[in-house]
Amino acid sequence: MAVYTDVSFEDLESLLAGYDIGKPRIFKGIAEGIENSNFYLQTDRCAFILTLYERRVSAADLPYFLGLMEHLASRGIACPLPVRGKSGEYWSNLNGRQAAILTFLNGVSLRRPETLHCAAAGDALAKLHAASAGFEPKRENSLGIEGWRKLASQTMDRADSIQNGLASLVMDTLDGLTDWPAGLPNGVIHADLFPDNVLFMDGKVSGLIDFYFACNDALAYDVAIMLNAWCFETDGAFNITKGRALLAAYSAQRALTRDEADALPLLARGAALRFLLTRVYDWLNPDPSAFVRPKDPRDYVKRLRFHANVRSASEYGL
Amino acid sequence: MAVYTDVSFEDLESLLAGYDIGKPRIFKGIAEGIENSNFYLQTDRCAFILTLYERRVSAADLPYFLGLMEHLASRGIACPLPVRGKSGEYWSNLNGRQAAILTFLNGVSLRRPETLHCAAAGDALAKLHAASAGFEPKRENSLGIEGWRKLASQTMDRADSIQNGLASLVMDTLDGLTDWPAGLPNGVIHADLFPDNVLFMDGKVSGLIDFYFACNDALAYDVAIMLNAWCFETDGAFNITKGRALLAAYSAQRALTRDEADALPLLARGAALRFLLTRVYDWLNPDPSAFVRPKDPRDYVKRLRFHANVRSASEYGL
Repeated sequence: MAVYTDVSFEDLESLLAGYDIGKPRIFKGIAEGIENSNFYLQTDRCAFILTLYERRVSAADLPYFLGLMEHLASRGIACPLPVRGKSGEYWSNLNGRQAAILTFLNGVSLRRPETLHCAAAGDALAKLHAASAGFEPKRENSLGIEGWRKLASQTMDRADSIQNGLASLVMDTLDGLTDWPAGLPNGVIHADLFPDNVLFMDGKVSGLIDFYFACNDALAYDVAIMLNAWCFETDGAFNITKGRALLAAYSAQRALTRDEADALPLLARGAALRFLLTRVYDWLNPDPSAFVRPKDPRDYVKRLRFHANVRSASEYGL
Repeated sequence: MAVYTDVSFEDLESLLAGYDIGKPRIFKGIAEGIENSNFYLQTDRCAFILTLYERRVSAADLPYFLGLMEHLASRGIACPLPVRGKSGEYWSNLNGRQAAILTFLNGVSLRRPETLHCAAAGDALAKLHAASAGFEPKRENSLGIEGWRKLASQTMDRADSIQNGLASLVMDTLDGLTDWPAGLPNGVIHADLFPDNVLFMDGKVSGLIDFYFACNDALAYDVAIMLNAWCFETDGAFNITKGRALLAAYSAQRALTRDEADALPLLARGAALRFLLTRVYDWLNPDPSAFVRPKDPRDYVKRLRFHANVRSASEYGL
């Protein structure tokens, strides 16, 4: 969340000369997004987000991310639609950064989603998976098992400063992932569909945002990420009612295969490890120019310990 | 600019139960304001700003600030209007902070205002001064000459680390202000009407914002602040064309008295010192939780040096 790169109104005016989207009426930096600079822009025609891509998003990946959103939006998914400039490009350069203008979606993200929201979000994920079929570009998951090993090697010497035993928990979990499932149904996954990234209006999903971790991977891994992100209470307890609602809503659109169901406990463990590791990394390497306090990694220690004892997908409510 | 205090959608919903302003559709932290937390809130009826007042704004001053905006808005000034809750109060408590909901104004602030904008802003200041007549509450200017002495005593031992000779420049200027004018026409001043705080739409002022330095002081001091804030180029040169435009537009609404005109060079020097001192203070005492890079005090060293050589208001374009 932040504005890392400053954009003056005059900068905006130069940029807008390359677009046909009307005259600016509101232009404000907003506290949102991973490590990009985001601005709310309202013209006399419509509302937009202007995003300047900072270091975590590689320019080489922009065609994938923006192309995916365009693909999804054209298939009825309520996601930001990159606006093409007069020259046909959907990104440009602004103040030394790649920049894109995307349509703005109404709706609010929830801090404490209830069961009905978990169901709605599970349904939205399945529709996202279905709509992404036919999207040709590929992007490897840079935060897959190899990425975790790398993060572990960069952080384990200091991990116990966060919590005693954290390093061995991570290394043991990594060791236990040697039978990481291969050959599961694959496709485009959002890979970060946390409550922050799902907008609601009147209890219904009004939009999915922040596709900057999207990649090609096992679809069921996306489900496992959501079990972690939506179905644990703040005290770390798994809420099976929420799990059941999320899985039932997802399955109503796309039934999990037997292999996917069997793999779910392992996928959930891997997903917990992935978020634990990035949080540990951000905790140990705070960016002084970052505007966010790093998230507490320990929430994911609890999740990891829970998953370690799960033997079957039924324990998640499947 | 920032979000210091976190407000979840659920917190917002509890707050909105006390208001009759519709259902939330957009809710986003925005990078704006002095040291308050600000959120853009759009309901199905209207757009608002939710402000949580952080340490720099004293709760005791809220009735003055919010009352002033209500007074001004009722007299046709385009400024944020505090929305009263169902109980009639226009502020409440949220997450340990005083909080107010104010109407949102369209328009954009300019980084590099041109002459026509300086004129429009000068005109807006005069109208603000006229409209504030009859506002009864009083608030002393805590950043008046006594405040400057205090800031100087807190910073002068380290000021030369910013620029050689800064400490003696400040102390000499303070010494030269013993004949600070008294008895000039007094009233409510904005005291911070920088380009950030004036919104434009199609070259016309569409709103004045950020009244959290407003106080009772010499009206001409507000003009002197604007000469500093609007009429210098980025290289530190005074642009007399802009000064002339601003002063002419102000004077067309309210002619400066002979005493005010005579005092203008001294008032401009005092205004430059005020912003120099707060910038020096913020530079030497960076707040690790602040989201803004402190502004460079040296811009105001140049202004101060310019004013020191001004002998008559005509040199500002009057």
